[in-house]
Amino acid sequence: MKRRFKTLILLIIWSSLCCTISLAQEKVQQWNRFELALKYSSQGNAFDVRLTAKFTSKDSSYIVNGFYDGDNKFKIRFMPEKTGEWHYITSSNVRQLNNQKGAFECVPAAASNHGIVRVSNTYSFKYADGKQYYPVGTTAYAWTHMGKALQAITLQSLKQSGFNKVRMCVFPKDYNLVKEEPEIYPFVATGMENGAEGKEKKTWDLGKFNPAFFQALENQIDELNSMGIEADLILFHPYDKGRWGFDSLPMDVNFKYIQYIIARLGSFRNVWWSIANEWDLVKYKTHDEWIALSKAVAEADPYHHLTSIHGSTAKYIEYWLPYYTHVSIQDEGPVLNWGAAVILRNAYYKPIIYDEVGYEGNLASRWGRYSGEEMTYLMWMGAIGGTYVTHGESYMFKDATDTIFWAKGGTFKGSSWKRAGFLRKILEEAPGPLEASDGSRDFKTASADNGHFIVYFGKEMNEYWYFNLPQKNGSFSRLIPGKQYRVEIIDTWDMTVTKVAGTFETAPVEDYRLYDTERKKIRLPMKPYLALRITEIGE
Amino acid sequence: MKRRFKTLILLIIWSSLCCTISLAQEKVQQWNRFELALKYSSQGNAFDVRLTAKFTSKDSSYIVNGFYDGDNKFKIRFMPEKTGEWHYITSSNVRQLNNQKGAFECVPAAASNHGIVRVSNTYSFKYADGKQYYPVGTTAYAWTHMGKALQAITLQSLKQSGFNKVRMCVFPKDYNLVKEEPEIYPFVATGMENGAEGKEKKTWDLGKFNPAFFQALENQIDELNSMGIEADLILFHPYDKGRWGFDSLPMDVNFKYIQYIIARLGSFRNVWWSIANEWDLVKYKTHDEWIALSKAVAEADPYHHLTSIHGSTAKYIEYWLPYYTHVSIQDEGPVLNWGAAVILRNAYYKPIIYDEVGYEGNLASRWGRYSGEEMTYLMWMGAIGGTYVTHGESYMFKDATDTIFWAKGGTFKGSSWKRAGFLRKILEEAPGPLEASDGSRDFKTASADNGHFIVYFGKEMNEYWYFNLPQKNGSFSRLIPGKQYRVEIIDTWDMTVTKVAGTFETAPVEDYRLYDTERKKIRLPMKPYLALRITEIGE
Repeated sequence: MKRRFKTLILLIIWSSLCCTISLAQEKVQQWNRFELALKYSSQGNAFDVRLTAKFTSKDSSYIVNGFYDGDNKFKIRFMPEKTGEWHYITSSNVRQLNNQKGAFECVPAAASNHGIVRVSNTYSFKYADGKQYYPVGTTAYAWTHMGKALQAITLQSLKQSGFNKVRMCVFPKDYNLVKEEPEIYPFVATGMENGAEGKEKKTWDLGKFNPAFFQALENQIDELNSMGIEADLILFHPYDKGRWGFDSLPMDVNFKYIQYIIARLGSFRNVWWSIANEWDLVKYKTHDEWIALSKAVAEADPYHHLTSIHGSTAKYIEYWLPYYTHVSIQDEGPVLNWGAAVILRNAYYKPIIYDEVGYEGNLASRWGRYSGEEMTYLMWMGAIGGTYVTHGESYMFKDATDTIFWAKGGTFKGSSWKRAGFLRKILEEAPGPLEASDGSRDFKTASADNGHFIVYFGKEMNEYWYFNLPQKNGSFSRLIPGKQYRVEIIDTWDMTVTKVAGTFETAPVEDYRLYDTERKKIRLPMKPYLALRITEIGE
Repeated sequence: MKRRFKTLILLIIWSSLCCTISLAQEKVQQWNRFELALKYSSQGNAFDVRLTAKFTSKDSSYIVNGFYDGDNKFKIRFMPEKTGEWHYITSSNVRQLNNQKGAFECVPAAASNHGIVRVSNTYSFKYADGKQYYPVGTTAYAWTHMGKALQAITLQSLKQSGFNKVRMCVFPKDYNLVKEEPEIYPFVATGMENGAEGKEKKTWDLGKFNPAFFQALENQIDELNSMGIEADLILFHPYDKGRWGFDSLPMDVNFKYIQYIIARLGSFRNVWWSIANEWDLVKYKTHDEWIALSKAVAEADPYHHLTSIHGSTAKYIEYWLPYYTHVSIQDEGPVLNWGAAVILRNAYYKPIIYDEVGYEGNLASRWGRYSGEEMTYLMWMGAIGGTYVTHGESYMFKDATDTIFWAKGGTFKGSSWKRAGFLRKILEEAPGPLEASDGSRDFKTASADNGHFIVYFGKEMNEYWYFNLPQKNGSFSRLIPGKQYRVEIIDTWDMTVTKVAGTFETAPVEDYRLYDTERKKIRLPMKPYLALRITEIGE
């Protein structure tokens, strides 16, 4: 009887495998997801089953972790980074999951699929297909923990925006203006207990993840992907305060969680790992534990997704460590004043994202009360220094049930989100990333090429501007006399680009700068937040 | 005959040793120099003789290299960092220099001897005796390569100044405004050859250092020490252009040079190692070679003197490496604008010295034409961010023979050098180092303690100032209401400190700041370059 039952199970597994393999023979686009599902009914804790697979192509191989997805399903996901035939073989401490083989064909990506984003040319980013990626992101920390209706509205808001990155937390958030109880949790609840402050709180089986929680998260990350939005996924944060205890999990659970989430989400091309939001405000982890968690992420991720870690204001970590692909910091200091944004580029030799400089909103706290103009100004102040500033919006017109975008998502109520899209358009129209032209002396001019410049005036309201550019031109060739240029006036607030009549020609260098041969000047409308786009006229 | 000669030599050595040991029994002050001299006539190249000594006290031991000082003299120098009895024993591949033993007593330092300067509290410096050290330095790259008369004038100028650090090169300098041929060289000249540009140039025996050169350098460093001035000694620089070839020595010679200079100068308590000036402008060394040279310095120096490396404008190196005790950079960007100086503190977690932000002078080049006011402003802009800005002066009134201080020393002709001394006085009157009080938001206020603040207005010309301080107070306790304060107006240009009548009392926190309970304001003289010193009145 027992033996007959086992045979039956094996038959089920086999049929499931056949089915999987036939699915696997479907073609998979480059940077899309291949998924292998295996059925196995574990006698013990299915989350303790060890399962990996080795994927091999003509000239590369990857070892990825599988994971338990509930309902006796074990899955292995893989993102092929090269076209052609891929073979795989599984390895497991469970016989039935071990030594499963198969193959699939990776075909070229569709036009809308640009691949995973990676660091390019030290300070900037490119999709794997070579297209430049300029992060113009916003913040919606707990949007996936809100009700389904609100999540749908958030996705709609993001879709109509120009954002191509969103900072979002895996764990739910408890904060002044965010008190909603999520519908599902990352761990399986086992009951209730009295918390430290006498309040009832859930208890968890920390050996068991809740697959439904992660499936829901994955659906939303796939939705973001379909809109071309990168998910800057925050793995840990301090906004818990004993309510769920996800900020104070034992370190062995933290490491298992890292393994599990990377097994599930490593194959999602639009995922970035943000090890933490405000790491130093988490009371239950030491600095060295953060470094250990960062190392664990780098080691568990065979694709080396973009990875960073975010601290409280001006609390930087050792961003030079190899675990961090870029710098993701909270600090408004470097963008409130001229010439400061570029300094961290010079220090770290990595892309700099100011992932929290305060938000447009109407809160009493200074971090949440910028005007739309100020938020827009800060994004441009970052851009002109060759760095990136993340948007956020914290308007609360009603009460704690209001859908303040910064935490809950919903609809945008401010004015800078549209300007973020306009900035992205300006960045994407350039031939490459901006960098300060003469960074320690000229704080307003950025170069994107030998013949493409942006001059940003910030809050200055000028009546006119003499055509002039610095001789120094970032990493490009120094400017020379006798070149023709066109000028456009960019109104970063009104989101207009106006051509200036006529052309300009550089005269010989005069005290580090090149003016127009006839000393021509341009009339400006005496408004703040203007920029110029200056482009060389091709021969 | 031969044997008798050898015996004679040994007798000489023995008497020399006796003599040395009796000298050694003299008491040596803590952080002063113990020197052991041994006579030995080497048959081969005396610079190839290996000689070290181990110095042991009750609870610590050091191994230091000896060096050949010419005239058959081998020397071992040692800086005792602890009082009490020290024993030494030599080790050498030459029998006569091997196994020499002795002892001396290290006695407490005199009042004027504060010991070696070290990093203190992450961002600042202290002498070994606990006295705070605030670097207020100037620059005189090639002053020790000028004629003796000019060197004496330079020392006199430094003595009457308030500077406590000077950046200076070991190797001579060839630059636009500095063409003097030195009288002595660090290597022994062997003849002349035709250089790359057809000019005659000296050839060197790179296996033989010139002791006289180093002795002269040492005398001047001791002179500086007697004035309380630290020698920020630049080991390599690019200003050679094939004239002497000291920028393009083979790497094995560079390493020998490091060993030799540290053997000679490691025991000088006022020496800092600056691995290079403008490292990236030296054509003959790669980035990785600079790191290797930095590592060699750290490993050869048993005392771990303050060590950094300096690049061209905004060309930072990996200052997080353990070889560098502090950050020494060329960049005016961080001090030309508000709020930028502090950023590198936040990034590196080391003291920040802006060792070149341009100089006061009248040159055509933008690096050498600041007004005295601007140079003073930049020093204060660094100070208010909890960092340090080095002074320099580049006035040239005649021609290339003019004694432009920045390179040749001589007399100060500008106006900011006096203000540097005044800044030092203000810094030293504080209970500890300044740090930005609320660095990402308030760019004008620095705290030196719970009850000591400096507010710097820079170029603003204000008619009055409402008493107010930020609640955030750097690493100190947040400000609270009900505390009494006194205010003084500091004119950083006129070098005056004027007491403001009356006292001020902090009211409850209002939007992150504390005002006076009666909203008192202070009349200001509507001049630029003013600061305030605000001190709590003790209970």
